[in-house]
Amino acid sequence: MKKIGIIGGLGPLATVKFMELLNKDLNYLEEVEIIVINDPTTPDRTSYILDNSKENPLKKILEMVKKLEITKCNVIVMPCNTASYFYKEILNNTNIPFINIVQETVNYLQEKKIKKVALLATEGTIKSEIYENLLKEVNIECLIPSSKKQEIVSSVIYDGVKSNKDIDLTNFLNLCDNLKKQGAEKIIFGCTELSALKITKKLDDEKFLDAMEVLAKKTIEFMKKETLENN
Amino acid sequence: MKKIGIIGGLGPLATVKFMELLNKDLNYLEEVEIIVINDPTTPDRTSYILDNSKENPLKKILEMVKKLEITKCNVIVMPCNTASYFYKEILNNTNIPFINIVQETVNYLQEKKIKKVALLATEGTIKSEIYENLLKEVNIECLIPSSKKQEIVSSVIYDGVKSNKDIDLTNFLNLCDNLKKQGAEKIIFGCTELSALKITKKLDDEKFLDAMEVLAKKTIEFMKKETLENN
Repeated sequence: MKKIGIIGGLGPLATVKFMELLNKDLNYLEEVEIIVINDPTTPDRTSYILDNSKENPLKKILEMVKKLEITKCNVIVMPCNTASYFYKEILNNTNIPFINIVQETVNYLQEKKIKKVALLATEGTIKSEIYENLLKEVNIECLIPSSKKQEIVSSVIYDGVKSNKDIDLTNFLNLCDNLKKQGAEKIIFGCTELSALKITKKLDDEKFLDAMEVLAKKTIEFMKKETLENN
Repeated sequence: MKKIGIIGGLGPLATVKFMELLNKDLNYLEEVEIIVINDPTTPDRTSYILDNSKENPLKKILEMVKKLEITKCNVIVMPCNTASYFYKEILNNTNIPFINIVQETVNYLQEKKIKKVALLATEGTIKSEIYENLLKEVNIECLIPSSKKQEIVSSVIYDGVKSNKDIDLTNFLNLCDNLKKQGAEKIIFGCTELSALKITKKLDDEKFLDAMEVLAKKTIEFMKKETLENN
């Protein structure tokens, strides 16, 4: 049987919402097993990217990769944008195909011929420029919130979703409107905690592009291809 | 690190909702890894219980148990009531503690000094009498819907939740009201697809007792005890 391996717990709510996205579409694909390793003790990715003296989360991520390898899964996915900073180290440590959420989101934008986007993500994702570098390669302009506006985004991610509190989204939604007015054709929800928020709060506006949703679609496409090739 | 192993995919939506219940409460317990094996190809439990010539799901369930054993989890849980029919076979095939959703729900009712309940479940759970036998042992009377009324319950489980369709719940909720009028102090949602429905549709009436919620609470209690014993 074909298997999807999920590096989970980054964070736990995002993992569950990612499974829901897969389940919804996997109706087409009833022969796929999903294996999740949900380790909530992985050190915070942003803390490490902002300050390399902090604990490096890579060790924990690679431990999960090794556990998934034992299950002989066909593909490994990781519903976390910030951790894509470690993309190359993951590739270097496994022979199992790994789908990169950031690369797939950029591919999607390129296919849709988008020219200008805005990025809502953790400070770690912003600082590491993982989105910006890939977007630049395909000539997509990327708006980044000012440090002051970034505080609004970080507050939604950390105080809202990660801490499971119900927070006021007015400032956050105003920020999105402003980015749209500045010419962003799509506003990337480039943090899976924001993806979880988008699902929970039904933020279905067309201007939003949820990176986790792109990852779910790509994962299912990959599995369909795997299944076809073996029939 | 302490680990919870979940036998998942029975069904996939229930598994995800169970993880959400754990996540909500696991805030207290940030040091717990959750490993899920989500195999949607497990043969239908009710089909087998109603007709033993159908494919037996036990083989698939024990395969998942073996995969979880490799991860050295501290406890195995299975968010599926009907599959508790195979409880003894699971116990006989592993040394890892296994929490039985049906037994825990009955324990809970006994602790709360409930004397009369009604059971909403799959035909497999009803026919196998796994709830009735345990309830009888502790002198709790159990109302079972008539065959005609059972059709309403089965339809919600199979046509609604398992097929991910939005169905009209009027008949189902009327049935619940009637059972309450017949003296049921609690109406057991004894199928995890009904538990998923209860969460999705916010059916928060006090008369409902969700077996999956009991399982989540018991799992967390178990893990807290494990953690304390090792500190």
